[in-house]
Amino acid sequence: MPLENKSTQPGTMTGNSYGKSRVRLTKIIRRGDNHDIKELNINIQMQGEFDRAFLNGDNSQIIATDSMKNTVYVLAAKNEFDSIEQFARILAGHFIKAYKHVSAVTIEIEEDLWQRVVVDGKAHPHAFFGAGGEKRWCEVRTDRKSETVSSGIRDLRVVKTTASEFWGFIRDEYTTLPEVRDRIFGTAIASTWVFDNAGHDFNLCYEKIRSAIIEIFATNYSLSVQQTLYEAGQTALNRCGSVQSINLTMPNQHRIPFNLEPFKLENTNQIFVTTDEPYGLISATISRTR
Amino acid sequence: MPLENKSTQPGTMTGNSYGKSRVRLTKIIRRGDNHDIKELNINIQMQGEFDRAFLNGDNSQIIATDSMKNTVYVLAAKNEFDSIEQFARILAGHFIKAYKHVSAVTIEIEEDLWQRVVVDGKAHPHAFFGAGGEKRWCEVRTDRKSETVSSGIRDLRVVKTTASEFWGFIRDEYTTLPEVRDRIFGTAIASTWVFDNAGHDFNLCYEKIRSAIIEIFATNYSLSVQQTLYEAGQTALNRCGSVQSINLTMPNQHRIPFNLEPFKLENTNQIFVTTDEPYGLISATISRTR
Amino acid sequence: MPLENKSTQPGTMTGNSYGKSRVRLTKIIRRGDNHDIKELNINIQMQGEFDRAFLNGDNSQIIATDSMKNTVYVLAAKNEFDSIEQFARILAGHFIKAYKHVSAVTIEIEEDLWQRVVVDGKAHPHAFFGAGGEKRWCEVRTDRKSETVSSGIRDLRVVKTTASEFWGFIRDEYTTLPEVRDRIFGTAIASTWVFDNAGHDFNLCYEKIRSAIIEIFATNYSLSVQQTLYEAGQTALNRCGSVQSINLTMPNQHRIPFNLEPFKLENTNQIFVTTDEPYGLISATISRTR
Amino acid sequence: MPLENKSTQPGTMTGNSYGKSRVRLTKIIRRGDNHDIKELNINIQMQGEFDRAFLNGDNSQIIATDSMKNTVYVLAAKNEFDSIEQFARILAGHFIKAYKHVSAVTIEIEEDLWQRVVVDGKAHPHAFFGAGGEKRWCEVRTDRKSETVSSGIRDLRVVKTTASEFWGFIRDEYTTLPEVRDRIFGTAIASTWVFDNAGHDFNLCYEKIRSAIIEIFATNYSLSVQQTLYEAGQTALNRCGSVQSINLTMPNQHRIPFNLEPFKLENTNQIFVTTDEPYGLISATISRTR
Repeated sequence: MPLENKSTQPGTMTGNSYGKSRVRLTKIIRRGDNHDIKELNINIQMQGEFDRAFLNGDNSQIIATDSMKNTVYVLAAKNEFDSIEQFARILAGHFIKAYKHVSAVTIEIEEDLWQRVVVDGKAHPHAFFGAGGEKRWCEVRTDRKSETVSSGIRDLRVVKTTASEFWGFIRDEYTTLPEVRDRIFGTAIASTWVFDNAGHDFNLCYEKIRSAIIEIFATNYSLSVQQTLYEAGQTALNRCGSVQSINLTMPNQHRIPFNLEPFKLENTNQIFVTTDEPYGLISATISRTR
Repeated sequence: MPLENKSTQPGTMTGNSYGKSRVRLTKIIRRGDNHDIKELNINIQMQGEFDRAFLNGDNSQIIATDSMKNTVYVLAAKNEFDSIEQFARILAGHFIKAYKHVSAVTIEIEEDLWQRVVVDGKAHPHAFFGAGGEKRWCEVRTDRKSETVSSGIRDLRVVKTTASEFWGFIRDEYTTLPEVRDRIFGTAIASTWVFDNAGHDFNLCYEKIRSAIIEIFATNYSLSVQQTLYEAGQTALNRCGSVQSINLTMPNQHRIPFNLEPFKLENTNQIFVTTDEPYGLISATISRTR
Repeated sequence: MPLENKSTQPGTMTGNSYGKSRVRLTKIIRRGDNHDIKELNINIQMQGEFDRAFLNGDNSQIIATDSMKNTVYVLAAKNEFDSIEQFARILAGHFIKAYKHVSAVTIEIEEDLWQRVVVDGKAHPHAFFGAGGEKRWCEVRTDRKSETVSSGIRDLRVVKTTASEFWGFIRDEYTTLPEVRDRIFGTAIASTWVFDNAGHDFNLCYEKIRSAIIEIFATNYSLSVQQTLYEAGQTALNRCGSVQSINLTMPNQHRIPFNLEPFKLENTNQIFVTTDEPYGLISATISRTR
Repeated sequence: MPLENKSTQPGTMTGNSYGKSRVRLTKIIRRGDNHDIKELNINIQMQGEFDRAFLNGDNSQIIATDSMKNTVYVLAAKNEFDSIEQFARILAGHFIKAYKHVSAVTIEIEEDLWQRVVVDGKAHPHAFFGAGGEKRWCEVRTDRKSETVSSGIRDLRVVKTTASEFWGFIRDEYTTLPEVRDRIFGTAIASTWVFDNAGHDFNLCYEKIRSAIIEIFATNYSLSVQQTLYEAGQTALNRCGSVQSINLTMPNQHRIPFNLEPFKLENTNQIFVTTDEPYGLISATISRTR
């Protein structure tokens, strides 16, 4: 029986969700003396029959977000997993099974990446250093019919000092930018790829797509950010057959040539002002052609 | 004539957009000696026929994002506006008219808020101080058929020290949270509301909805974050008739009672650990009933 | 008996300290139905005889930083205080008395400021909203001979749209900045003041100095950031007799006039690019003349 | 002739400085087709005879901070340098020579680190990716008598999953922390080292000290953060003879064992809550014994 809206209220709730964000987990995996470390930041969002809490403050349908947090640590203890995608599926599958009134669960995981320290040419068994600002990321969304797995990279910073041009764009009364045949191209790439429904090696795809993106960034002679982005997407689809589509987003973090003329010097494409803002933002999705 | 995909490429571009982000504008409005200041952060995104840049590095369809940036400053100089919504409409309308191959334009504006300094009980004509971390925000999306105006608040920080309970939620094997009849409720509210198609007083709606949210937060006896959020949404719809729907998002920024027992003291709901993470995240949309 | 340094080691420890940072406390003060809330972020640093931990990993002199954290919550529960300075003195005094081998304690407290919500013209008894990015701050340093109390403001954002000039500066081969007789002056002031040894009303001084700084910023006709900063410091010393010296730091957050000439428009000091970097940084200390 | 203080003013200026902060430079170094990129963030502060600006708004002694910014780009164009220390010395030396009324100059440089992309096993000539959040840093301070060069690392993130204990610390009424014989030790190291007055290879010292710190972190069996920090400092002095003293600061970024008992599971040191705050903060300076 649907709850009746209070007659004086002008609106109807047309959507809602809730969950726990930034559940931070460190898991040590011990194989004898050789350890691995996983540091994950997990977001949980649920949709379902939660109306009574909104309409009447009746919490009988509410799974406390604190219980969701507990579940993350308990399932991390009970299960082995070798990718964030696998752990996200375990969590999503658990929640959708455990709570009949939940219609959909979304699990997002961001991984802080660590590299093994090398001492005297040997990989150290239990010491690690930070592998940069770059994050690995995934999202698993489960409803009672299907499951979607997306994976990605966030904040992959790259820069190239040449082999990038930008000219031939529209010139009108609002245009002051000069055409340029040699410019710096710097960006912090975010990419998300969606898998088909078969089983996958998420780690292998991550490595292949990450290296495809970096390789194309380095080797594509760029006539526009758009072109490089598109080539990176096509190459990623080529390298990982189980990916159905890939989105790439590239902020164009401009390095502006510093005007040395007032100082009677020539700027032979050497001296630039590094800027964060404003920035161009270019995005596209490439889907596997059927 | 659509561009042909290179035969060896596995994918097809199924979506793309680009634009300029974080264009930062300061505008001084002078009415004699009495000044106003507007400080805006503007994001522009366009969709349209830009395929040649992606597929071939041919920029002949590309409006340089630098030209978009110029346009912001030029239109800010040429036009008077008294709300960010009005300026966003000016910008969106300009771009869609000026470039025939652009199919949709989205303008997002975030406003840094300033308050007038008061000296000796009098409002100062040209000095201002920061009105907090709270931001006013809007988004105007225009295609060749229609225009949608959304407005909002970001990071409206509020806290109440009582009149908030949380109990009666699901208790199962993952639950350790005790029920509580008196807790702190602290959050940083984000809200977005969508207008109908008539003309509006955007500033008046902003003031009315902002004060409705704060008032309900203060006065609603809260049995759950969900309930308070829902009441705030209904009240906002009541106060501003031109709003069709409103979304509210409330992170539950937990203050955890500090356990004083080991120190032989009782915590009479006075001493808490302030935390940022993990946090509950509750969201709902209330739409005007027709 | 001093610990001997291992003979093969090239260095001697010439200084050390340790403590706990970012201990976050929420305290509710209840006066019947009328509540106050204090949200503090506390840093503790200690100096003393801790050499054995550094030299030999012998922790017998070490107060666990976790115990320092506990002490903050316990002393907040046991004591009433009406200013952060008072609580910092309680903490510093406790630590120096409790641990004989500690030679100096520094307590830093930063306060998140909340304002009471007003509903229907009446101050609400238990609901508050965020009073902005501005923070109140203090530091108490105690050794076995004396105690120093410093107080301050952090990130007090202000802007004025006129009554600010900048000209007559050194012009040489590195100078391209034009002289300007009317510019925007925007900054985020940090100020620290040091008290003499008598008893003080820390809250009153905070209010007086804060309003002096804002008032001088608004009313001083500025020929340079330096001049305004100096006047603010002198006025602060005038308003609060127990302050011995005051330091002010003002980043000059430039708003750059946007060049409208290419668009055949004149910029009548209305349209500016808001920037965060680079920024001028001006600092001075004014000490009471004896 | 010293400027007279206005008679009504209570204070005297006892210190001041000013300069330009966050001057961001990208420099490309071209050796044929092989490029290097340097991205630096430069802060300049000057002390000297600037009183007239503070006292009277007379800017005749003022070097505009905009001119300081110009000087950075001009000197970067005119000079070759292979370390941030060398460029900081060039800048400091220039300013102190160019302006007779400047008594001291401090140049701080922070370097964003880039790594060369490898494609098909070969280092790419002009493409780079971000080498992490870690920054290289230096400070050169010059007055008319001497020059001090300090160098350092900021935010070197490391973690070890075992070989770290913490026990034997003071237990009193404020202590609840259990003793632990196997814990995670995670930190983000900052280190600053000061050179003697001879000529140095700053890059070599940076590499040697950085690897010494990481190596000791990995291999030192840690009984306390203090002990590991001290050993890292001694080893750094051993590896780089021209360093006179080194300061290390280590925030103890706690990973807290998650309590699995309520869920009838044992935590065999595998499952932890990752936290940022509160954190222990340990610091020491080791100076070369004479």
